[in-house]
Amino acid sequence: MRVDTHQHTRSFVRTFFTSPTAVEGEEDSAKLLRGAVGLRGMQAPDVWVPDNEDATAPSMRDEGVENIIEVVSEHGAEFPGEIHPRVVWHRDDPGTRHQGLQHMLEIANPEHGAIEHIDGFVIPEVGDLDDWKKADEFMTIVENEHGLEEGSLAMSVIIECGESELGMGRLRDEMGKPSNNLQRLFMLVNGEVDYTKDMRAITPTGDLPPWPELRHNTSRAASAAGLIAVDGPYDDIRDVEGYRERMRDNQAKGQLGIWSLTPGQVVEANLSPLPPQTGSWLLEAGGREVELRSDGDTQIYDGDDISLAETDDGYVLTADGKDHELDEEALHNELLDRMAYVPSLSDIVDSMEEFEAAKEAGRGAIAMTRATTVAIDGIKVDISTDRMWDEATYQAAMTPIALFQDVYEHRPDQHEELGERYSEDVVERAMNVG
Amino acid sequence: MRVDTHQHTRSFVRTFFTSPTAVEGEEDSAKLLRGAVGLRGMQAPDVWVPDNEDATAPSMRDEGVENIIEVVSEHGAEFPGEIHPRVVWHRDDPGTRHQGLQHMLEIANPEHGAIEHIDGFVIPEVGDLDDWKKADEFMTIVENEHGLEEGSLAMSVIIECGESELGMGRLRDEMGKPSNNLQRLFMLVNGEVDYTKDMRAITPTGDLPPWPELRHNTSRAASAAGLIAVDGPYDDIRDVEGYRERMRDNQAKGQLGIWSLTPGQVVEANLSPLPPQTGSWLLEAGGREVELRSDGDTQIYDGDDISLAETDDGYVLTADGKDHELDEEALHNELLDRMAYVPSLSDIVDSMEEFEAAKEAGRGAIAMTRATTVAIDGIKVDISTDRMWDEATYQAAMTPIALFQDVYEHRPDQHEELGERYSEDVVERAMNVG
Amino acid sequence: MRVDTHQHTRSFVRTFFTSPTAVEGEEDSAKLLRGAVGLRGMQAPDVWVPDNEDATAPSMRDEGVENIIEVVSEHGAEFPGEIHPRVVWHRDDPGTRHQGLQHMLEIANPEHGAIEHIDGFVIPEVGDLDDWKKADEFMTIVENEHGLEEGSLAMSVIIECGESELGMGRLRDEMGKPSNNLQRLFMLVNGEVDYTKDMRAITPTGDLPPWPELRHNTSRAASAAGLIAVDGPYDDIRDVEGYRERMRDNQAKGQLGIWSLTPGQVVEANLSPLPPQTGSWLLEAGGREVELRSDGDTQIYDGDDISLAETDDGYVLTADGKDHELDEEALHNELLDRMAYVPSLSDIVDSMEEFEAAKEAGRGAIAMTRATTVAIDGIKVDISTDRMWDEATYQAAMTPIALFQDVYEHRPDQHEELGERYSEDVVERAMNVG
Repeated sequence: MRVDTHQHTRSFVRTFFTSPTAVEGEEDSAKLLRGAVGLRGMQAPDVWVPDNEDATAPSMRDEGVENIIEVVSEHGAEFPGEIHPRVVWHRDDPGTRHQGLQHMLEIANPEHGAIEHIDGFVIPEVGDLDDWKKADEFMTIVENEHGLEEGSLAMSVIIECGESELGMGRLRDEMGKPSNNLQRLFMLVNGEVDYTKDMRAITPTGDLPPWPELRHNTSRAASAAGLIAVDGPYDDIRDVEGYRERMRDNQAKGQLGIWSLTPGQVVEANLSPLPPQTGSWLLEAGGREVELRSDGDTQIYDGDDISLAETDDGYVLTADGKDHELDEEALHNELLDRMAYVPSLSDIVDSMEEFEAAKEAGRGAIAMTRATTVAIDGIKVDISTDRMWDEATYQAAMTPIALFQDVYEHRPDQHEELGERYSEDVVERAMNVG
Repeated sequence: MRVDTHQHTRSFVRTFFTSPTAVEGEEDSAKLLRGAVGLRGMQAPDVWVPDNEDATAPSMRDEGVENIIEVVSEHGAEFPGEIHPRVVWHRDDPGTRHQGLQHMLEIANPEHGAIEHIDGFVIPEVGDLDDWKKADEFMTIVENEHGLEEGSLAMSVIIECGESELGMGRLRDEMGKPSNNLQRLFMLVNGEVDYTKDMRAITPTGDLPPWPELRHNTSRAASAAGLIAVDGPYDDIRDVEGYRERMRDNQAKGQLGIWSLTPGQVVEANLSPLPPQTGSWLLEAGGREVELRSDGDTQIYDGDDISLAETDDGYVLTADGKDHELDEEALHNELLDRMAYVPSLSDIVDSMEEFEAAKEAGRGAIAMTRATTVAIDGIKVDISTDRMWDEATYQAAMTPIALFQDVYEHRPDQHEELGERYSEDVVERAMNVG
Repeated sequence: MRVDTHQHTRSFVRTFFTSPTAVEGEEDSAKLLRGAVGLRGMQAPDVWVPDNEDATAPSMRDEGVENIIEVVSEHGAEFPGEIHPRVVWHRDDPGTRHQGLQHMLEIANPEHGAIEHIDGFVIPEVGDLDDWKKADEFMTIVENEHGLEEGSLAMSVIIECGESELGMGRLRDEMGKPSNNLQRLFMLVNGEVDYTKDMRAITPTGDLPPWPELRHNTSRAASAAGLIAVDGPYDDIRDVEGYRERMRDNQAKGQLGIWSLTPGQVVEANLSPLPPQTGSWLLEAGGREVELRSDGDTQIYDGDDISLAETDDGYVLTADGKDHELDEEALHNELLDRMAYVPSLSDIVDSMEEFEAAKEAGRGAIAMTRATTVAIDGIKVDISTDRMWDEATYQAAMTPIALFQDVYEHRPDQHEELGERYSEDVVERAMNVG
């Protein structure tokens, strides 16, 4: 099989939710695992990561392994997402790597009854590709020891240093080689806290730098090797708008998954890459894209950054600190330039169906028209825009639909919420398009 | 010859203009080719690409080959730019690759009379460098079959997936090897629509992400291997200001060429990297650089983002939501910090000549002074700035001049327009400097 | 020894200060070297670079070598920073490379008495790693010729072309090989003027492009190979705020050092990566982060971009061109989202000590509370924020402390200034934490 095709059950992962495996001082040290394994619907992640590394105190990690076994063997069958425990690992510490092997051997022992519900392991702190191969070899040994099929355990890695970022650039060359089983690779996950330390970066407030190049390189490596790119944790749990903004930025880079630290973040991250329920219009004003308030077919701008007045022979649009005297056509064009439409799932399905019909009828490109009325300072302007759709536009629009279909196929526990969100009719059409 | 020198006739390509090779339903399916081959002057691109791939329906591509042969053999001799047809290719589809070979063999057949006017072929959808080598080998076979000199056909590739982006990083190592003819490489062209699909990126409005890292990596690979970096198509043909902004952004990355979809875009893209006709002053206001309105020697700010008032003991400058009380010197310095000069071609030539004279006289660095008067809210302030020019400044200023000289040398059809734009005297001096 | 550990005396370099080695037309051509070698305290750089390349006219470079020998042999022992002369080199010119070898042989001759005070050489204009190896080999020959220990001369390179940027990505693979001494590598320095020329980039005003990807790649290579990343010169010497902003941007990328062209820039660059003397609060207003004016425990916003008014049933906050009607809790949360605290050195030490004590007591994570009062348009709001500190937060906070400790250990001439800036007590605690 080619290295650049998605070889695992899921082709998309929206959410990577970590839980401490053993909490000191609680009557039941597995309390958080038990809470997480019970999550369902939008609160349940695509990938659940019982975290026996950083989220769990070093002294509790052996107990953490027992907890994983206990909770997963008992409740894993009903959990709607995949389960990928994170074990300890460090490129610079053989003792930690050996402990990681021991923990994997223990968790994967079929006699414990957990491994049948476990899809793979997450390996943190990897270094050069030679270090990735050590972890791969350990997983091969685990499979061999326990009579599991070679390559059946998925391996995901956390990229949290410069050398593993560089290693991603060579993954495609190494994955096909007969001396490794790197085809087991599944997710490339960014770990920005340790990455920031490794890169010795400093910010005045101690906030994490945005690391756009790291995220690009992760997404590119995932694309080239048929893997899934996942961004690291967003620490400020209270800041929902910031989390959403980060996800939009990630999605524009092709990194469609993100770490979630709470069920609340899981809900946000499960929904974020799905198209919206209803379409909306944006207006560029004051250097930002502002969503217009919809009132029937009219889109109303409520802000102060743009103002519009009628004069004897036309209009004055004030924007960006300047008055623009415009006639009707110029005003239309100026507003058109500043406006953009965010299509709903239903809109996307409509356009794809229309294009598919046109293709069937032998046409390679068609114009999709979208019209509305925008109101600024009480003055209404009719806006109409044509967008050409060809095969490439159609293919690019396919990404959110393919993601939707992957979710719908593998997450029956979310069917009800998806049906309520989009209506059953739209869901059905979305499953049949493409 | 070294791999990192520009080995083709042109060292710069401003414009990459594609035309469908065969349009269904027209009386003359070659209509668009015929229109394009007749372009002259600023409307004619540096590189014309009869596009037998995405712009042409699959069912029309054999006819497209015939049309290319007919139109180019008849009119190619008079076309002022280079001609590089795009043929079909796909890293994942041997059938498509074989079709690409057949089409190249047909087009390059000397009996058809087109190949003498054709400079090379554009190969889309390439993957790893091993895939580039397949296309290279096919072109070697075409050359051999038709008695053309080995390596004489230029090869340009469209970078539209993660693996070809990664491949560009190793180009320099592969180009010199005796087992390939990769020295035939000419342009590295970004194809952001398919790249976006391959990276599985999503944006709310369906607009293409900006992909700054891809453009950097393309420009860097071109620089390291003596090739030419060209950006992909800008779909919103109506949005001239957006197209210009994208070109400015590209130029700051060293990507001096761009795809053009219409003769109107060709004009914009041919002019964009050339220095302006007249110099102008910019003022940073409201987080933007605003061009000041020139009135004789005075530069007038008309906007609302900065205001200036005189007080009993100085000035109050209001900017960025704050009042700044300043004395005369502080006001001068504040304005100086906010202002920048965009030199014209004539200004650049002046400075270079002045520096060349100074160097002749044994001086390694000289100060270039530029002075003007700026008026804000009717208050005039004299501004004077010194910039040190040394060898490095001189060399960096050389890029637009080298581009101008390359254009002037290879595009006699643009001489008249260049002469009108800059005056014959400035053109002559620009050709003699450096 | 592993390639990715810092193998030289200094683990951090804040400042890279170049001086022309021989100035024509002066009575004493070594005048600028003599001035530089006398610098002490914050005016003295971590690394001083007598620049026998671009800063010195080609005709003066033999004399420059003599001047380096004379000034360094006489005053080098007292100079508080390291001394790394830059010699001539060019990837494309064997004559220049041979001259570089001759100059290194001359400067390193123990009979001249300078080499005992010289820590290494800076090699500009390197190309592929094979070119770096040539410079490395020449330094091995110099060491052998003069009876110096093999590998004892540090080598730093200036990255000023695409191929050396690409080369950095493979450094880690090459550094351990027995056929080279690349472990002598010390600093990776960006040279944006020549890089801009090599990339053929154009900006309207002739200013240098920001090259964020280059700086990321340099920082990443330094991180992966245990080296130190240094940014290139900031030409506009008058623009202190711009220099500071560039340094903040670099620091967020892990590039903690920067070129300095004047003792004034040295002072700025020595101080910039050190934590501030006193903490301060930032407020996001008008798309910028604005530092609030501190008045006792109250932080006052003086700008116009945000305004606040009390109403009968709550508050109206006007920001980003919009009125937000908020109750007390919503106002608190909105302000909290917009505010951030910049900790002082003392604050960082406090937090680290607190975390160390908690860890000692068996706790893995603690909440650090920070409270203040913010005043906008005379209305005061109490703000309180909790931040979770765990091992990772602690490790990330360590970077500025490790830098401080490195500075304090190796720069006794700055002890007095550091003591005055932070107080002796804070300095002592900062030296003992971590």
